[in-house]
Amino acid sequence: MKFIRKRDKKQSLPPGTLTYVGEEQQRKDAVITVINYGKNTYEEKTIETIEESYSAITSDRQTWINITGLTDIKTIEKIGKELEIHPLLLEDIVNSEHRPKLEVNENHMLAIVKRLYYSEEEEELQNEQISIILSKNVVITFQEFAGDDFETIRKQIRHSVGGIRACGTDFLFYRLLDSVVDRYIIEVEELEDRLEELEEKIIDNPEQSLLHAIYQKKHDVVGCKKIVTPMKEVISQIQKSDFPYLTEQTKFFIKDIQDHMIDVTEKAETTRSMITGLIELYYSSVSYKMNEIMKVLTIVSTTFIPLTFIAGIYGMNFHRMPELHSKWGYPAVMGGMVLIAIGMFIYFRKKKWF
Amino acid sequence: MKFIRKRDKKQSLPPGTLTYVGEEQQRKDAVITVINYGKNTYEEKTIETIEESYSAITSDRQTWINITGLTDIKTIEKIGKELEIHPLLLEDIVNSEHRPKLEVNENHMLAIVKRLYYSEEEEELQNEQISIILSKNVVITFQEFAGDDFETIRKQIRHSVGGIRACGTDFLFYRLLDSVVDRYIIEVEELEDRLEELEEKIIDNPEQSLLHAIYQKKHDVVGCKKIVTPMKEVISQIQKSDFPYLTEQTKFFIKDIQDHMIDVTEKAETTRSMITGLIELYYSSVSYKMNEIMKVLTIVSTTFIPLTFIAGIYGMNFHRMPELHSKWGYPAVMGGMVLIAIGMFIYFRKKKWF
Amino acid sequence: MKFIRKRDKKQSLPPGTLTYVGEEQQRKDAVITVINYGKNTYEEKTIETIEESYSAITSDRQTWINITGLTDIKTIEKIGKELEIHPLLLEDIVNSEHRPKLEVNENHMLAIVKRLYYSEEEEELQNEQISIILSKNVVITFQEFAGDDFETIRKQIRHSVGGIRACGTDFLFYRLLDSVVDRYIIEVEELEDRLEELEEKIIDNPEQSLLHAIYQKKHDVVGCKKIVTPMKEVISQIQKSDFPYLTEQTKFFIKDIQDHMIDVTEKAETTRSMITGLIELYYSSVSYKMNEIMKVLTIVSTTFIPLTFIAGIYGMNFHRMPELHSKWGYPAVMGGMVLIAIGMFIYFRKKKWF
Amino acid sequence: MKFIRKRDKKQSLPPGTLTYVGEEQQRKDAVITVINYGKNTYEEKTIETIEESYSAITSDRQTWINITGLTDIKTIEKIGKELEIHPLLLEDIVNSEHRPKLEVNENHMLAIVKRLYYSEEEEELQNEQISIILSKNVVITFQEFAGDDFETIRKQIRHSVGGIRACGTDFLFYRLLDSVVDRYIIEVEELEDRLEELEEKIIDNPEQSLLHAIYQKKHDVVGCKKIVTPMKEVISQIQKSDFPYLTEQTKFFIKDIQDHMIDVTEKAETTRSMITGLIELYYSSVSYKMNEIMKVLTIVSTTFIPLTFIAGIYGMNFHRMPELHSKWGYPAVMGGMVLIAIGMFIYFRKKKWF
Amino acid sequence: MKFIRKRDKKQSLPPGTLTYVGEEQQRKDAVITVINYGKNTYEEKTIETIEESYSAITSDRQTWINITGLTDIKTIEKIGKELEIHPLLLEDIVNSEHRPKLEVNENHMLAIVKRLYYSEEEEELQNEQISIILSKNVVITFQEFAGDDFETIRKQIRHSVGGIRACGTDFLFYRLLDSVVDRYIIEVEELEDRLEELEEKIIDNPEQSLLHAIYQKKHDVVGCKKIVTPMKEVISQIQKSDFPYLTEQTKFFIKDIQDHMIDVTEKAETTRSMITGLIELYYSSVSYKMNEIMKVLTIVSTTFIPLTFIAGIYGMNFHRMPELHSKWGYPAVMGGMVLIAIGMFIYFRKKKWF
Ligand SMILES: [Mg+2]
Ligand SMILES: [Mg+2]
Ligand SMILES: [Mg+2]
Ligand SMILES: [Mg+2]
Ligand SMILES: [Mg+2]
Ligand SMILES: [Mg+2]
Ligand SMILES: [Mg+2]
Ligand SMILES: [Mg+2]
Ligand SMILES: [Mg+2]
Ligand SMILES: [Mg+2]
Ligand SMILES: [Mg+2]
Ligand SMILES: [Mg+2]
Ligand SMILES: [Mg+2]
Ligand SMILES: [Mg+2]
Ligand SMILES: [Mg+2]
Ligand SMILES: [Mg+2]
Ligand SMILES: [Mg+2]
Ligand SMILES: [Mg+2]
Ligand SMILES: [Mg+2]
Ligand SMILES: [Mg+2]
Ligand SMILES: [Mg+2]
Ligand SMILES: [Mg+2]
Ligand SMILES: [Mg+2]
Ligand SMILES: [Mg+2]
Ligand SMILES: [Mg+2]
Ligand SMILES: [Mg+2]
Ligand SMILES: [Mg+2]
Ligand SMILES: [Mg+2]
Ligand SMILES: [Mg+2]
Ligand SMILES: [Mg+2]
Ligand SMILES: [Mg+2]
Repeated sequence: MKFIRKRDKKQSLPPGTLTYVGEEQQRKDAVITVINYGKNTYEEKTIETIEESYSAITSDRQTWINITGLTDIKTIEKIGKELEIHPLLLEDIVNSEHRPKLEVNENHMLAIVKRLYYSEEEEELQNEQISIILSKNVVITFQEFAGDDFETIRKQIRHSVGGIRACGTDFLFYRLLDSVVDRYIIEVEELEDRLEELEEKIIDNPEQSLLHAIYQKKHDVVGCKKIVTPMKEVISQIQKSDFPYLTEQTKFFIKDIQDHMIDVTEKAETTRSMITGLIELYYSSVSYKMNEIMKVLTIVSTTFIPLTFIAGIYGMNFHRMPELHSKWGYPAVMGGMVLIAIGMFIYFRKKKWF
Repeated sequence: MKFIRKRDKKQSLPPGTLTYVGEEQQRKDAVITVINYGKNTYEEKTIETIEESYSAITSDRQTWINITGLTDIKTIEKIGKELEIHPLLLEDIVNSEHRPKLEVNENHMLAIVKRLYYSEEEEELQNEQISIILSKNVVITFQEFAGDDFETIRKQIRHSVGGIRACGTDFLFYRLLDSVVDRYIIEVEELEDRLEELEEKIIDNPEQSLLHAIYQKKHDVVGCKKIVTPMKEVISQIQKSDFPYLTEQTKFFIKDIQDHMIDVTEKAETTRSMITGLIELYYSSVSYKMNEIMKVLTIVSTTFIPLTFIAGIYGMNFHRMPELHSKWGYPAVMGGMVLIAIGMFIYFRKKKWF
Repeated sequence: MKFIRKRDKKQSLPPGTLTYVGEEQQRKDAVITVINYGKNTYEEKTIETIEESYSAITSDRQTWINITGLTDIKTIEKIGKELEIHPLLLEDIVNSEHRPKLEVNENHMLAIVKRLYYSEEEEELQNEQISIILSKNVVITFQEFAGDDFETIRKQIRHSVGGIRACGTDFLFYRLLDSVVDRYIIEVEELEDRLEELEEKIIDNPEQSLLHAIYQKKHDVVGCKKIVTPMKEVISQIQKSDFPYLTEQTKFFIKDIQDHMIDVTEKAETTRSMITGLIELYYSSVSYKMNEIMKVLTIVSTTFIPLTFIAGIYGMNFHRMPELHSKWGYPAVMGGMVLIAIGMFIYFRKKKWF
Repeated sequence: MKFIRKRDKKQSLPPGTLTYVGEEQQRKDAVITVINYGKNTYEEKTIETIEESYSAITSDRQTWINITGLTDIKTIEKIGKELEIHPLLLEDIVNSEHRPKLEVNENHMLAIVKRLYYSEEEEELQNEQISIILSKNVVITFQEFAGDDFETIRKQIRHSVGGIRACGTDFLFYRLLDSVVDRYIIEVEELEDRLEELEEKIIDNPEQSLLHAIYQKKHDVVGCKKIVTPMKEVISQIQKSDFPYLTEQTKFFIKDIQDHMIDVTEKAETTRSMITGLIELYYSSVSYKMNEIMKVLTIVSTTFIPLTFIAGIYGMNFHRMPELHSKWGYPAVMGGMVLIAIGMFIYFRKKKWF
Repeated sequence: MKFIRKRDKKQSLPPGTLTYVGEEQQRKDAVITVINYGKNTYEEKTIETIEESYSAITSDRQTWINITGLTDIKTIEKIGKELEIHPLLLEDIVNSEHRPKLEVNENHMLAIVKRLYYSEEEEELQNEQISIILSKNVVITFQEFAGDDFETIRKQIRHSVGGIRACGTDFLFYRLLDSVVDRYIIEVEELEDRLEELEEKIIDNPEQSLLHAIYQKKHDVVGCKKIVTPMKEVISQIQKSDFPYLTEQTKFFIKDIQDHMIDVTEKAETTRSMITGLIELYYSSVSYKMNEIMKVLTIVSTTFIPLTFIAGIYGMNFHRMPELHSKWGYPAVMGGMVLIAIGMFIYFRKKKWF
């Protein structure tokens, strides 16, 4: 089976045709992990086929199923069929370039969110799509790559810290979202720091490479904005929804995430205006340097051109030039030149040119 | 009959006077194709007169009538009369510069949309107006030119793929719209690619021709925006309408198109800010080059002007110039000049001028 | 009676004091034309006093009274009194600088609109205020100057073309508005053409006079925007009003005008961004030319300054300069100069300076 | 008693502490004028203590009390107590830097408005705070300084012109507001004229002092905007209020003021974009001049530098320079120089440099 | 216990984990002050443990508890538990970088606000987070640092001035907010003054250090905006809330704060456009100076280059140069040079170059 990656291939496909469009280059089997927990119980296992997980879902315990790898279309289709998720939603889950969005029906609440992270190799802010489904007694998470920010939460469940085990799956749902949003704050603040570093470098020496660096960071800023704006909307929709498996108590916690999202949105807006400021600063520094160059050129030219002219006068070969025969001709001319040079010096000082 | 093309001619015409205003230069007969399909039947034919098609419309099968060519005013008038479409709507269908819009009455839903395509000859994003009418058991499409993106859908009906044959005409209506919108994503992403190519060229050598190229692409960006914004509105109106021949099930699919439209709108907005970025980059590169020129001029002038002055001094013809008679005069002056040049070199290095 | 023209004079005047503020320099008598028509009848006459017209208004025919000339305050006051139009509305009708607006009471619908036209003498987009009153069986139009775009409509009534005679006065009201709005499209598109012409001239040779031309056209663009925005509002208010003498059928036609207004508004917005683009283009072209000048200056200076220095060296009068006595001194120096010039040439080529 | 002027002093003061913050330097007694009028009666007097005025307020006549001078805190406190105006509102009345606002309770309608006027001495648009209270049968106006635009209205009452005497106090209230707003139109149009004058000066000679003049006018523009925007809101609130002492008939007149406010707001917005245009024009003119300077420099340098080099060649002292001994050497070199100069001239012409 | 300061550390912490994130470097015990007052009673004390304060809260007197120092997590947790404040709200109270917000439940109204102050050492506008809780008969304030603007209010309670003692705690709540907002006006106006100072310096001599100063002040402006916008929202929410312990009478006073907030927001917006104006002014001044430099360079070069050329001509060593032998050759050439110089002078004057 040919591995479809380009979005272009999707035109006029029948709706609900699952197509992974992300950055993973090879098709891999999905890794499915199931965590079962209750007030006093805890069980964690990695399973082979999705069918094994269903036995685990009972009404007296909470179940968290985590699927890593969106290229395994078949497994995801099977999960979708079992849980009665509409094919169009499954299509959105595996379309890892989808905008954050919330979809609610009577049995499921699906939040498609984005994990932000800074890739040191590519020196770029990147994102991973994470889809979180909340249903009765079960939370299902879909991740693009291995490795995540959810490990802390797993530990808290494992060691019964922070009260997750005492609450329903809606509280787990909240904690997962909260963890995603907490990361936004960190990444946006680090972006601010990188922009401040850039500012110092520009003040030091405005090389053109720094302008390219600014434009590269602008990508991060814009990309960040594109995630943050719909995420704010998603959180606010969760808050306003009347999904039966989301308690009022948990909604109070969701409101706390809303506060964070307002904060992140403002910070993202700030980085945006920092970019504008950096571009202005770059040009100002370049024009300052240009100014310096012009001043040197003008001082040198303006000082020597008249002197050279005078030297030229006395280099003329006219037979009758009385000054040439005078004993004091040479020292007088040299003295005059020195006076002119001093006059220029005073003039430039007055103009504050140096 | 004189062929009216200029919009100007329309002033104070009685309302409902059909006037084609597009790019087709000659009047051609409209080509009418009829596809009849049901769960187990399929029939496709090209007909001469529109009357032939009506026998085909029955309540147990779906009918798709496609009319290509908007210059054949008479045929279109006839179709309008038969189907009881208001003359003002027919006027909009043949006015191929009309804004995308939705018109709903109790029997018809008319969507005037735009197919985006990139013309390789004119190196420009162009559009074709497509009007889609959904009625009971029938879908009628009007196209400006031959050739379209609907071929894939025709094949799927023909070979009974993707479930169109099992659904009503409202699902066909959805698939046609979806195919139009899918194309937007492709075109906008290719526009992004062309802008990125332009960026590389500017960094390489900022010729003024590239500025014109930017402004040309700006046309594409603006044109794209002008189509995408009302299209988003059209899709959203379809979603909110309560047209009796559009089922709730199909509306869920329309919601998927809405997601695409949000995505396209954002991407179009991105190309807009890319244009701004490119203009800034162009000017930055030009001013960088100017800077380089100034530096060369200043280094050369500042180095040689004082030296030339010194040479001028000893070219003066004064009778009493003791240095001229000195044995070491010439080498001493030459040495002094070298020292001055070295001093300049160190000064420029310190200033990071080269 | 002194002819009041300056708006300043209106401060603290009692409300309802009619004051013409437009461009007509002399007071003229108003010209009153009355057209009476029905399905099978047509009558047209120019009358002296407004009283004559009332006999014409009967319930079995439609009457269109057209008044040209807003300086004839007395006649207009008389009309106002007869038709029971509030003095404040009459004040707005003769205030030919009034913003487009709609005023509806139980008996009258008053639309104050603006006819756009391009004055070839003043090379400027200008407007004429037209007030249209719709009442039971009568339409009254007030114009500032003679000559209008309504002639086509008069002909259609006269020769019973386009169905006006078969409809009520509300349809005439629609046709008058439609004719005004159709003209907007023409004028805005011609404005676009003039801006494109300007663009070509700037690319050809960016003279400062062209910058002034841009700013002059900006006046047209802004003026156009100022008319178009409230007009869109007026049309939309007519559409939403529940004025008893405006039928639902005619409202469907008004909706068509609404489409045109959206189109015009967008086009006006486009001309606005064209102006911005032209200003940018002008500066780019100027800076390109500056760049060219700098390159020529630098190439000439950078080539000749070192050569002149060398010539200066051998123009010094030192007694001991062995090169001067050498047989090959002169040709060697000349050859060296040629080599330096060639080196410069290669350097500039590499820098892509010419 | 120390005269408090600085707003700073107001921090943490108990609410309702009256503090004048305007430009009047000395404390003066308030001047109180009372006008009593009815259909056939008219009486006007200046009184010493506010108590005298109350006897005048009767239900069969209208009373207009005008207080000039906001530094007389005591008198104003007394008026407030008598009329049962809330101390916080009195605080706003004497705070002459307050934003225009409307305050309505069951007995009073208080409009805090701003009179705009151009101060010839300070060459600046300034404003005076005017508070107008409408109550049953009485209008009270508070002014900051003597001298106002209400004189015309007083005359119309005195000589029974314009129908004020036949109407209630709400009509007087309308006339006062109308007079304030009429003045806005005049001032904004004069501001436009001053900006146009500035434009001509910049085109003539772009001195830096003109840039400062632009920034000064920008103050006027911004100040104007700050008054006009809340004023529009105030008028619209009056229109929408259901204050019992404001008749529907008068509200129709208020709607006329609303039209004026829309007009003023648009004009103020125009002046804003005129400022932007002027700044652009200034820079364009400066850069045009710079361009001119560069062209002169380049033409002179480029013409003479090569010629001077040639002269330098033949100024060298080599013993063997055959040209020097040739009879035609001198005229040949001079001729060559002339040819080079002509070549340059043709080159520059072709480049359209002069 | 390690002192957590970095926000980063908060990711995936269980909700309600109190973490101080502000600028205080060391952990200090909170200082708790309790003021008890009634119409005729007043008592003020500093207590050690929060439990002591509760005995003071009785229904016949008002209690104001002030806690200074947010690093003392334990004490604050204890207060939270006693007063039944949700842990998430406590988390916000100690998170001293929180956005201003209002939280209302049936027993408490919590306003998180920011005190603005100018730090002379850091030459920067800074803020302190102040949380104010209004409950039945009690107001609790949390401050970050010692020292505040509430001292005036304490004095007014102590000396029974301004009527606080006669009112309930909601009036105290209003007075505290009013005092915070009054300070905004002062700080924003002082910011305006500092920007005006900067303007004068730039006009005097546009050094690059001033550009950095502008960017520093921009921080203040942006920071100010970030506080003022949500504060306006907080005040408006208080106004619209139906919290039972906030009387209608006090709400009328809150409306007065709303007026102030509109004023502050506008002033903050003004400082924003002042920053833009300053940057423009800086560049204008720099380019003006550049212009001056170019003019001097061009005048000197253009004057002397042709003269030097002439001197070069007569410095050539041709044997046959008749002028050299002429008696009047030297004075004629010198005279010619003077004439050329005068011509240049006149040309430059005409061009208004000096
Ligand atoms: Mg599809
Ligand atoms: Mg991705
Ligand atoms: Mg992962
Ligand atoms: Mg959080
Ligand atoms: Mg930072
Ligand atoms: Mg919180
Ligand atoms: Mg028409
Ligand atoms: Mg087309
Ligand atoms: Mg086609
Ligand atoms: Mg699609
Ligand atoms: Mg790309
Ligand atoms: Mg989808
Ligand atoms: Mg008036
Ligand atoms: Mg006019
Ligand atoms: Mg006319
Ligand atoms: Mg039309
Ligand atoms: Mg065109
Ligand atoms: Mg139409
Ligand atoms: Mg106060
Ligand atoms: Mg004032
Ligand atoms: Mg006054
Ligand atoms: Mg008025
Ligand atoms: Mg004017
Ligand atoms: Mg303004
Ligand atoms: Mg009016
Ligand atoms: Mg947390
Ligand atoms: Mg802080
Ligand atoms: Mg404090
Ligand atoms: Mg206050
Ligand atoms: Mg000030
Ligand atoms: Mg107040």
